[in-house]
Amino acid sequence: MTQLEVAKLGHVGLVTPDIEKSYWFFHDVVGLEEVERRDGRIYLRAWGDFEHHTLILIPGDKAKVDHIAWKAKRPEDIEVFAEHYRNQGIQIQDIEKDEEAGQGRAIRFKVPTSEHPFEIYYEMERTKSPEEKRSRLKNQSSKAWARGISPRRIDHVNVTISPDPEPTHNWLSQNMGFKMREYIKLNNGMIHGGWMSVTPLVHDIAVMREMKYSGPRFHHVAYYLDNWQDVLRALTILREHDITPDLGPGQHGISQAFYTYVRDPGSGHRLELFSGGYLIFDPDWEPIEWKEEELVEGLFWWGDSWAPGTGHPMDETTEA
Amino acid sequence: MTQLEVAKLGHVGLVTPDIEKSYWFFHDVVGLEEVERRDGRIYLRAWGDFEHHTLILIPGDKAKVDHIAWKAKRPEDIEVFAEHYRNQGIQIQDIEKDEEAGQGRAIRFKVPTSEHPFEIYYEMERTKSPEEKRSRLKNQSSKAWARGISPRRIDHVNVTISPDPEPTHNWLSQNMGFKMREYIKLNNGMIHGGWMSVTPLVHDIAVMREMKYSGPRFHHVAYYLDNWQDVLRALTILREHDITPDLGPGQHGISQAFYTYVRDPGSGHRLELFSGGYLIFDPDWEPIEWKEEELVEGLFWWGDSWAPGTGHPMDETTEA
Amino acid sequence: MTQLEVAKLGHVGLVTPDIEKSYWFFHDVVGLEEVERRDGRIYLRAWGDFEHHTLILIPGDKAKVDHIAWKAKRPEDIEVFAEHYRNQGIQIQDIEKDEEAGQGRAIRFKVPTSEHPFEIYYEMERTKSPEEKRSRLKNQSSKAWARGISPRRIDHVNVTISPDPEPTHNWLSQNMGFKMREYIKLNNGMIHGGWMSVTPLVHDIAVMREMKYSGPRFHHVAYYLDNWQDVLRALTILREHDITPDLGPGQHGISQAFYTYVRDPGSGHRLELFSGGYLIFDPDWEPIEWKEEELVEGLFWWGDSWAPGTGHPMDETTEA
Amino acid sequence: MTQLEVAKLGHVGLVTPDIEKSYWFFHDVVGLEEVERRDGRIYLRAWGDFEHHTLILIPGDKAKVDHIAWKAKRPEDIEVFAEHYRNQGIQIQDIEKDEEAGQGRAIRFKVPTSEHPFEIYYEMERTKSPEEKRSRLKNQSSKAWARGISPRRIDHVNVTISPDPEPTHNWLSQNMGFKMREYIKLNNGMIHGGWMSVTPLVHDIAVMREMKYSGPRFHHVAYYLDNWQDVLRALTILREHDITPDLGPGQHGISQAFYTYVRDPGSGHRLELFSGGYLIFDPDWEPIEWKEEELVEGLFWWGDSWAPGTGHPMDETTEA
Repeated sequence: MTQLEVAKLGHVGLVTPDIEKSYWFFHDVVGLEEVERRDGRIYLRAWGDFEHHTLILIPGDKAKVDHIAWKAKRPEDIEVFAEHYRNQGIQIQDIEKDEEAGQGRAIRFKVPTSEHPFEIYYEMERTKSPEEKRSRLKNQSSKAWARGISPRRIDHVNVTISPDPEPTHNWLSQNMGFKMREYIKLNNGMIHGGWMSVTPLVHDIAVMREMKYSGPRFHHVAYYLDNWQDVLRALTILREHDITPDLGPGQHGISQAFYTYVRDPGSGHRLELFSGGYLIFDPDWEPIEWKEEELVEGLFWWGDSWAPGTGHPMDETTEA
Repeated sequence: MTQLEVAKLGHVGLVTPDIEKSYWFFHDVVGLEEVERRDGRIYLRAWGDFEHHTLILIPGDKAKVDHIAWKAKRPEDIEVFAEHYRNQGIQIQDIEKDEEAGQGRAIRFKVPTSEHPFEIYYEMERTKSPEEKRSRLKNQSSKAWARGISPRRIDHVNVTISPDPEPTHNWLSQNMGFKMREYIKLNNGMIHGGWMSVTPLVHDIAVMREMKYSGPRFHHVAYYLDNWQDVLRALTILREHDITPDLGPGQHGISQAFYTYVRDPGSGHRLELFSGGYLIFDPDWEPIEWKEEELVEGLFWWGDSWAPGTGHPMDETTEA
Repeated sequence: MTQLEVAKLGHVGLVTPDIEKSYWFFHDVVGLEEVERRDGRIYLRAWGDFEHHTLILIPGDKAKVDHIAWKAKRPEDIEVFAEHYRNQGIQIQDIEKDEEAGQGRAIRFKVPTSEHPFEIYYEMERTKSPEEKRSRLKNQSSKAWARGISPRRIDHVNVTISPDPEPTHNWLSQNMGFKMREYIKLNNGMIHGGWMSVTPLVHDIAVMREMKYSGPRFHHVAYYLDNWQDVLRALTILREHDITPDLGPGQHGISQAFYTYVRDPGSGHRLELFSGGYLIFDPDWEPIEWKEEELVEGLFWWGDSWAPGTGHPMDETTEA
Repeated sequence: MTQLEVAKLGHVGLVTPDIEKSYWFFHDVVGLEEVERRDGRIYLRAWGDFEHHTLILIPGDKAKVDHIAWKAKRPEDIEVFAEHYRNQGIQIQDIEKDEEAGQGRAIRFKVPTSEHPFEIYYEMERTKSPEEKRSRLKNQSSKAWARGISPRRIDHVNVTISPDPEPTHNWLSQNMGFKMREYIKLNNGMIHGGWMSVTPLVHDIAVMREMKYSGPRFHHVAYYLDNWQDVLRALTILREHDITPDLGPGQHGISQAFYTYVRDPGSGHRLELFSGGYLIFDPDWEPIEWKEEELVEGLFWWGDSWAPGTGHPMDETTEA
């Protein structure tokens, strides 16, 4: 069989115990656009996202990741992935066309090494925004800067698992086509975390070692802004809404992202707002290894930083 | 045979009649780093380029593009491309390892529809910068902001051909894997220009209708900067060096690049310095068509603009 | 008598024939905050303005400047100015406390050399914004980035008079304390325009030669943004509202402002949105003279430019 | 006697035990221009400073502030200040013309309440830069972006005194014309610090309570950059030179400055690099009081912050 490879991160479904407050955060403050409401679920996207949604807010008893969705490269790949995973003994949940708004047939399953809930889909409506919201540009779904922070598009997810993320790195590499781009190797030989992608982004997904909780956990979903300055503007907007970010601004060494991190006050799910970073176009890219003694600069090239495992707000994760 | 597809734009070799002045422009003003000099040729790259070079300055009688180089996805693809093109009656020039500094075996040929000089290579030294220039970051070749404008990396090329670019669009699509991302369709049915890529960039290459010259022509090579603000800073630096840009600042509708354009005073070859733009991750992307009446906004969403064919400096191209 | 000197530009009252459209422009698109409505007049200010208003929209038959208001340095200066001007035979209009919302006693008069309508006031309510709009910062009146372009504060006005602005420069210097900071001297000895201030800003007012109309004319009022990037963001917002700016982005040599200019579609009054520029703290500043042959770089250091007197939109002015 | 008031901060003379390293820091990394060397002293200024120097590096046994210099409003004020201070029993040191390079007659004295060494001068050469460094703009002394961080101009100083800064606030107000703009009042009634200015800047000088040392101390001198983005670029440049800033990036509530702080590795004197902030044009400005419980937001609106008195690098000061 040829290499199985997904095309990109599509969206994230987040369960929230206070959907009104989560909607206020993601819609009013962050500035995502509402595309559809159905069965109590709210489908959102950024002004530069083309597909029907990149974030689903789902009402529920407690904060939890419902699923992380990856777009396949071809329609026929859905069944190839399903068959391949079933052969590994993974249980596949069939999602029928339109069961999730705007979406075609899809499958859901749990990553066998970490139990993170994944979805693979191909068909997704490229919804036209209503005229008053629609961008006057043909290559953009909605007007930029309509409200709040106004990021351009979804970018990546960051998940955690205890005690060892390496089996999950390996599974994602062998079964979904993710390539390791950068990773941290501790002096005891363990991998602390790895940044992986199928696209030229340094990571579509990072899988880190969880320091506090057991089971599959979720650290953040990230949305991209065009300029470093836009991240600074985001901080002012957050503070004017009486929201205190967990971290930032600062620049990571790994991935070179200029970041701030903030949690949705309705659910505790964390959002990264970032700009910059670099792209990897080389087919012969060698993963970059950061040793334990290089870790501080690797994580925090400059700016507001954090020491993992110290009870810092950035140590918190949500259930996945 | 499976789809032939290159991986990315690698570099451009530019012949200049005044290599000292061209070096002053690209090294001192633009701030590219010199990696090697050999046989009178100067190999340069930006601080975020990983390969040995992304620009070669070549002394010669008159300004001309020597070659535009594309990196293959696998080492064995070089011979597959060679065979495929020979079968079309295209003459292949063999480039031995190290004939071009830092580079492995490669082939050169002329695009049959336009005669533009292309190279396909795979192996290229990922040269470490000398210690005083080397970035303290492991994922970056040289220190940023060492001198002049200081762009991050090479991005794309823009070439022209008269009277009709469409056969070249088709050839690039069928023989190198480039996908059409956006294009301008005139009312007479002709394609005015097309933006094509093998990567998520909106274009690795644009092929436009040449309005003034015959034969293969070169409009510009583009380097990317991380922030819109960096393009504005570039304009100040250019003017303090008594260089007047051809155009900018402004934002294209097509590709959404925030740009300025300036010609190397040593050769007349044009450089675009830009930031922003959007990325295409969708395998089911539908090329965006801009009609003649949408052209002005498509080309110039806002800012300094130009009407092609009016004797504006932007009408100038160099031989390719 | 000691030198008569005002403290700063306070506000501008603009008559508009379409106050709904002007309100849409200044409130919805530009993002000024409404402080009060009275007698059909709308009082607006930016989030970093402290006084009750910096812009008044006044319904009327045709676009016209109602008055340009300067704050005195001391309450008792109002009468000193009144007496001084009456001694010159200037007609003084008394404005009683609260005749203009939020304002104390003031005087209005026409600049004798140009007939521009000026007001001098001292007392002005430092209005607290309603809680939902109020900034969480104690040194700022409203939340930043609440809506639209969101400039910080009013900055300066630019007025024109035909055929010669120099008598007005002299009158402003001798009777209001404005110091000449930069000026353009034509080869025929005429002053083309002068930039004058009582503050460290390069200009609180510029008086230029009018090329098209007779009588007192108004070129623009300017609001300041904190970053060059914010001016670029403004351009995107304008274009998404289907508004085409008259000029920009670009950087003036004189004053070093990074600008864009746009006309209110309800009235035709022009607004400059700019950032940057320099400050003059030196009591021994020597006015900078730009000769005719230095004019192009002085006006347009780089970016989108305009040749005065060519029918360009920037040649338009409104009645003052 | 009429109100005695200086015009602006002129320059700072800093004694350094390692003048080579201090020169490397301020010239090579920060990018100030060298104007003159005399008697082992190095006179520097930024590209937007007009006077001969804004920083003097003075070789000496240990780090110390030699003097903080204020420009008078009129030449005759020098003697008026001298007489006024002598009447208070303050010892006046006469500085003859050209004793300090580029400078006319001046006086030096110690602030009686805190012993900080001050200078008052009026005459200062407005030195033209040598042609290769000179800006092509007539209103700027040197080319911008020639090297390193490249701030525009000197802005303010921040000094400390134990145990109580209030007598110094009062002395500066009554004897030099500084107006209080913002201040922190602790619950015990003490003033923790005050930001004062004679210009529209929120502060030309801040006087804070010293937490660690006795005698007159120096916290930092600040240089201004045009854009928030330029401060972020500064951080990258510092880190590429293996310099770790003390703090930043972040935004103060008080003054609204977007900052980073870094110490000269040759002397330990601290430099603030900042952009933004607001201007006060109102003659009737009411000083803004921040209470102890508002202190955290007042000091750190968002970004990298510091708790005074905790042994943080920002607690360090140098002798003044």
